[in-house]
Parts: sequence; structure tokens; C-alpha cells
Amino acid sequence: MTLEQTASNRCFEGEQLRFKHQSQTLGCEMVFSLYLPPQAKTQKVPLLYWLSGLTCTDENFVHKAGAQRYAAEHGIAILCPDTSPRGDDVPDDAEGAWDFGKGAGFYVNATQAPWSSHYRMYDYVTQELPEIAAGFDSLDSARCSISGHSMGGHGAMVIALRNPGTYTSVSAFSPIVAPTQCPWGEKALGNYLGEDHSEWANYDACALIAAGASQLPLLVDQGEADDFLEEQLRTELLEQTCSEQGYAATIRRQAGYDHSYYFVASFIGSHIAFHAQTLAAE
Amino acid sequence: MTLEQTASNRCFEGEQLRFKHQSQTLGCEMVFSLYLPPQAKTQKVPLLYWLSGLTCTDENFVHKAGAQRYAAEHGIAILCPDTSPRGDDVPDDAEGAWDFGKGAGFYVNATQAPWSSHYRMYDYVTQELPEIAAGFDSLDSARCSISGHSMGGHGAMVIALRNPGTYTSVSAFSPIVAPTQCPWGEKALGNYLGEDHSEWANYDACALIAAGASQLPLLVDQGEADDFLEEQLRTELLEQTCSEQGYAATIRRQAGYDHSYYFVASFIGSHIAFHAQTLAAE
Repeated sequence: MTLEQTASNRCFEGEQLRFKHQSQTLGCEMVFSLYLPPQAKTQKVPLLYWLSGLTCTDENFVHKAGAQRYAAEHGIAILCPDTSPRGDDVPDDAEGAWDFGKGAGFYVNATQAPWSSHYRMYDYVTQELPEIAAGFDSLDSARCSISGHSMGGHGAMVIALRNPGTYTSVSAFSPIVAPTQCPWGEKALGNYLGEDHSEWANYDACALIAAGASQLPLLVDQGEADDFLEEQLRTELLEQTCSEQGYAATIRRQAGYDHSYYFVASFIGSHIAFHAQTLAAE
Repeated sequence: MTLEQTASNRCFEGEQLRFKHQSQTLGCEMVFSLYLPPQAKTQKVPLLYWLSGLTCTDENFVHKAGAQRYAAEHGIAILCPDTSPRGDDVPDDAEGAWDFGKGAGFYVNATQAPWSSHYRMYDYVTQELPEIAAGFDSLDSARCSISGHSMGGHGAMVIALRNPGTYTSVSAFSPIVAPTQCPWGEKALGNYLGEDHSEWANYDACALIAAGASQLPLLVDQGEADDFLEEQLRTELLEQTCSEQGYAATIRRQAGYDHSYYFVASFIGSHIAFHAQTLAAE
């Protein structure tokens, strides 16, 4: 596995890096960003995976969240993958929709043609990226947490819930909490996974919690002025499921905030502090 | 004067706003961004003008600097104009160069055709924007400071130095300190102002300080890994001029940092704290 570093910018005394590599899982060239805090110069640091939302690349969070300040403060690295396989060989939505195909991998392993040959973001995030992270001397990559926004909040929760013991904590901004019960999710899961709804449930945080997923520290922030809240995100289903299952999640509704990165920026410090606390207790 | 608000996003309990208006000074429609900190809901807050660099719009700083956190902390509004006149009627560099014309107004009042009819960013920032700011009930707009990056650092310093008593303090990241003595500046000033070099000196921070500009608190940060430092930015000329004139500036060279917004993000908190301190003493 060969990584090529394509950018390096000093940021808050650490380094904001960018890499490209040929992904074996996805069958295409992929790019990811990695922030190394200043502490990484002298010790191994824990790792936060950040999964972005629809239409994003690895860079949106890096540019807009202002997370490096908090990562530097707490000594945590942040790894941001892209949101889907990329390249001319990768099939895309026939009509170029922004909610399916490239930029919209939904962190699943597709089972249906033509998607199944490249759209395997679940394996990419849970297997290939951790192997890559293990290759960095400055990362204590086994000590890790995961977070994300919108589609990436869905991805973070599903990945953490399905891999007990792997992630110390999980958090999400404006997550799609139940993709089996919203238009974005129904389109994506239907196309990527076909009509077998039992397979869909493996990619639905609410369904996983309802099925008895083991607990880990879970923090969710949801803006109350988010235009997607009612139809797509459906935070009430997570609140209801956690309540029914006695799952001790912290789900915060933030008055006046929308779906944008201004919302993420406003609370990412709180999320990184949350992960830092659980990672420090490891 | 009619302002149309085109965006509003809650951010750090304040509001990130965007407006468009027909600029009388520039003869075209202009867009600017304004961050109102949470304190503005209950009291008048002071104002920091931010001037961006080559190729930027009003949004680069808003998206990438992470300044809202600090503005909210200190109770300071931030007004970010665009970097040049805009629109199909506005002449541009014949070859579409990024260092002249649209996106590169250099904060001057052009005297040469065809530029003089629209390129009047000096008057726009020093006259029209303050009039607009005075119309906001939540702004104590007479209590203001100014800052900027690269071309905008040049603009901030020139504007502060030429208008004693107007700005409480000035700061700059990676500023073009002596546009009369670097290729970017020579091209821009030559085209906008013609061959009369005495006029050029009115738009050169080093020349203004050398000519005895009155003192105000001045903070400059310059990355030592900045690719433009040696040929275009020439921080040593500012250091030398301030030293010769006994001008009490704080000029910091930051090891390892480049010209990007990662650098601005890393130190904007320090700059906003600097302005907050001088503004509070007003």
C-alpha cells in the first residue's frame, strides 16, 4: 500500500496533511486528509475519524469546521476520508443527483450491480483506513473515536454500533438516524442494497439500537432550524429508540441552528472534548 | 441605500449574515458578509473590518478562518467586503490574470481608464461601508478596527495609516507591506494609478510610515514558510521602516507557516484578542 502525500500546511502548530492512494477496497484512487496535532511530534496520539455528508469531499470539514484548534488543544489526530469512491471508472447516478452515487456513498458495502464493484465505503472506513492509520508512527490508531455530519453522522453511528470495542466513543451532527425511514436513505439503500430490507437494517442506527447494540458513549447535536430535520434526519426516532432501549445517549437540540458547517463549527469543540475525555480514559 | 439580506446562519450563538447592495462608489452590485456576535442582541458591539487577499470574495474568511468563535467570545462584529468591484460591466484583466482586475482591487481608487470608473475600493471601504455599518442598530460602528490578509493586509495597513483616529488598531497576516517595491504591487499600481509614483506612495504602508504616519497599535503575523515572502510580501522592509521611524509595531515571524488560511486560522484568535483589547479601551 503506497501513500502519496499531496499537501502539508502547518496549522495550530500541527500539520494539516493530505494523501492519495490506490484503494484496494474501492478499486479507485482515493484522497484523504489527516490533521496531526503538535503532540504527534513527540508521542503517539489517538485518532478521531470524521465522516462527511452528501456532496462533500475530504476537505469540507478541514476547511470549514475549525476543528484543528481543538484537536491541537487535546492532542487528537483527525482523519477525514472522502464520501464515496471517485474517478471516471466509478458509476454515478444517471441523472447526476447529489443524494446518490459519487459524493453519496452512505458508508455501505453495496451488493447490487453496478454499485457493488466500487461502493464499499463501510469496508473502506472500518478496514482499509485503520490499516493505513496503523502505518503512521505518530498515531496510536487503535485508540480511536468516530464522528460525522448528516450522511456522515449516520455512517459514524452505524460503524460504531456494529463494531463494539473498536471505537471509544461516537458523535454526530445532524445525523440521518434512520435511513430505512427517510427518502435519502430509501433511495440510497434501495439502490446499493436492493430490496432485501433485512440488509438495510444493518445500516440504520435506530434499527441497530433497537436490535440491542451494545452501548458506547454517544453524543448527537441537531439544529432545530435544520430544513432536513423533519423529513430526512428524524431525530425523534433516535430519541424514541434510545428511550425505549435504555440507551444512554446525549441528544441535544440546538435552537436556531441549521444544517450548515456554521453549526458544526459552533459545536465541534464540544464534540472533540467529549471524545478526548473518553479517549483519555482508555 | 437598500440592503438585501441574502443569507443568515446561526454561528456560535450569533448570526453569520450576507448582504447585497448597489454600490454607489463602485457602480455595481456588491456582496458583503457580516458576523454579529451574540452580544449584539442586547447591546451595540464594536466592528472589525476584514479585507481579504487576491482571488478571494467576502466568503473565504467567513468559511475558513474560524473567526466567529473569537468574535463571539469578545463581542465583536466582523464585516468582510469583496476584494474588487464585480459584474459583467466591470473591466477585468485582459488575460484573466488572478493578480489584477476582478478579485484584485488592491483597495485603491483607480485614476486610469478603464479602471477608474469602478475600481474605487479605497473609498468603498473607508466611506461607503462605514455608512452602511452605521445603519445597523446593533453596531457601535464608530468603534472599529481593521485587519486583512496579503493584499488585504496591505489594504488594512494603508487605510488605517491614512485615516488617523478612525481605526483603533490594525493588524495583518502576510501583508504586502510595500506594493511599490514588489511585482504584484507594481503591476496593480501601475495599471490602476498610472506612472505617477508619488500617487503610488499613498498606497504603500512602508512609504506611509516612512513619511511619518501617526502611530496606532499595529500587529503583523508573517509565516516563514510563505512562498511569497521573499519576492512579494517583503516583511523585512516593514521591520526596517518601523525600526528607522521608531514605529512601535509588533511584527511576528511564525516558523513553518505558509500563506494559506490555515495560517490565518491559527492566529486569528490572537488578532481578535488584540483588537478587542484596544477597542475595549476606547
